[in-house]
Amino acid sequence: MSEGRDVEISEVGLRDGLQNTDKVMPTEAKKGWISAEAAAGVGEIEVCSFVPPKLFPQFLDAGEIVAHATTIPGLAVAVLVPNLKGAERAIAAGAHKLTFTISVSRSHSLANVRREPGEQLEEFRRIVEYCRTVPAGRRPILSVGLSTVFGCTIEGPVKESDVCRLAAALIEAGGDDLSLADTVGYANPAQVKRVFKAVRREIGAKLSAAHFHNTRGLGLANVVAALEVDVRAFDSSLGGLGGCPFAPGASGNVVTEDLVFLLESLGLRTGIDLDQLIAVRRILSESLPGEQLYGHLALAGAPKGFAPARCDA
Amino acid sequence: MSEGRDVEISEVGLRDGLQNTDKVMPTEAKKGWISAEAAAGVGEIEVCSFVPPKLFPQFLDAGEIVAHATTIPGLAVAVLVPNLKGAERAIAAGAHKLTFTISVSRSHSLANVRREPGEQLEEFRRIVEYCRTVPAGRRPILSVGLSTVFGCTIEGPVKESDVCRLAAALIEAGGDDLSLADTVGYANPAQVKRVFKAVRREIGAKLSAAHFHNTRGLGLANVVAALEVDVRAFDSSLGGLGGCPFAPGASGNVVTEDLVFLLESLGLRTGIDLDQLIAVRRILSESLPGEQLYGHLALAGAPKGFAPARCDA
Repeated sequence: MSEGRDVEISEVGLRDGLQNTDKVMPTEAKKGWISAEAAAGVGEIEVCSFVPPKLFPQFLDAGEIVAHATTIPGLAVAVLVPNLKGAERAIAAGAHKLTFTISVSRSHSLANVRREPGEQLEEFRRIVEYCRTVPAGRRPILSVGLSTVFGCTIEGPVKESDVCRLAAALIEAGGDDLSLADTVGYANPAQVKRVFKAVRREIGAKLSAAHFHNTRGLGLANVVAALEVDVRAFDSSLGGLGGCPFAPGASGNVVTEDLVFLLESLGLRTGIDLDQLIAVRRILSESLPGEQLYGHLALAGAPKGFAPARCDA
Repeated sequence: MSEGRDVEISEVGLRDGLQNTDKVMPTEAKKGWISAEAAAGVGEIEVCSFVPPKLFPQFLDAGEIVAHATTIPGLAVAVLVPNLKGAERAIAAGAHKLTFTISVSRSHSLANVRREPGEQLEEFRRIVEYCRTVPAGRRPILSVGLSTVFGCTIEGPVKESDVCRLAAALIEAGGDDLSLADTVGYANPAQVKRVFKAVRREIGAKLSAAHFHNTRGLGLANVVAALEVDVRAFDSSLGGLGGCPFAPGASGNVVTEDLVFLLESLGLRTGIDLDQLIAVRRILSESLPGEQLYGHLALAGAPKGFAPARCDA
């Protein structure tokens, strides 16, 4: 945890948001977005995905984006990698943190990366091995993003025992930390508490973060539940960018602005200036015309007399 | 609490929703809305407001609406009354429950009903006296809705000691029960727990319900917080109808459909059929053309394999 923060927020709009829109954001706009959010106090940004460039024109500029982001002092530059090839490219680009995603649901894994979860685990082992050959100064943090943890649009319910087993295997394989993702917005607060506790029994403090979607309106309620079981790091997306391909009009990731407001209201310091953060939305509306942005704070503003959590508290 | 329910939901869209739109819903549409929600399993509906008809053309048909609603077997028919005159009309119409609103914030009270909170307390005493003259069979439940409990758009923060003192005075004056309202969407989950606990220390089990708005996206997070301090009755509005006059585009009341989904996900029985409830939205979109409806469930649908809380559990 950085000094002066009680909770770490990782902005994932540039990756999870942009991968769910068919519009391509210009490279300069991405750079501006990253710089502006870092200036607002966001400590970690997942800036792109090292997926095959032919399949995802959105991320053709991944190398250039990482090169820009790593010039910003103090910013932790995270990227998503689906396989070894992506990890190699990400490390060559100089990313600080690689998040390898693996789905607990077999059907979702096959649909997403055409591999069974077991095959993805093997791929992760190859990434770990490769990382060990990288000189210490350039070796990134190797994070695991476990997806469809709380349910799957194809399979429905996902077994908690499967989640625990896969989490343990990934940490055993060499993962530095692991986050749990409600990829399709199925989680509820009671389930969040139960699953985080169960996985923590398996991997302890290596259970790092929560990644919630607001597809069914429970995003922030799930954040509160996670806080109550001592989760202190959350992914979110500016303007809730991205939506949900399976539910047109339904919102996607938890909205960064609303998350900051919730946390600061609870007296938890995020290190982020809410007004400055809300101002960054302009970059999105200008560079992705017509894209729907979500979020309540940008519309309603903070309450009269609202005081963010004090840095000297 | 009715048999087969763990949580009571009171639909307030016909009152709180309609008072915040400049469109007038046709009387027949209101009747259809009430009947359809009752058929979906909603046990209590606040069907109208007995405000001065000249000022609120939306509620000109209040008597006719109550007459219709009271023909529905098993439905608790609630109405809002701002003063003695409204209470007299509501009782004459045959309402089962009168909710008298009183604002903790002096400025909000003056802006809303042109009376200080202390003057409203006097008005409430007159209502209590009047109710005692009503024959037992027609005497309604006399409920108090304490508003701006969690903050006020004019005054900013509201003192918890003021909330507690006013709550105690109203129950002392003869209120049957009392709910706490976050009229302008300022509440956060920590505050919700703190204030409900404090007021319960004053008035015990007469503290009945929570009324949250979703203006800043924390509506359902606040519901979860209230559940944790044993609140088991909530107001909400179909489609989140009403919006917020001070924040165009920002949502209003907690959305009934999303609330039902949250509660059933947590294993709490509402007695409400979610699909049937969502279908009622059509009445709103047809009778209030152009009015923005909110809610995630109507867009995203329930999760695959979602099972409502079992009635035989």
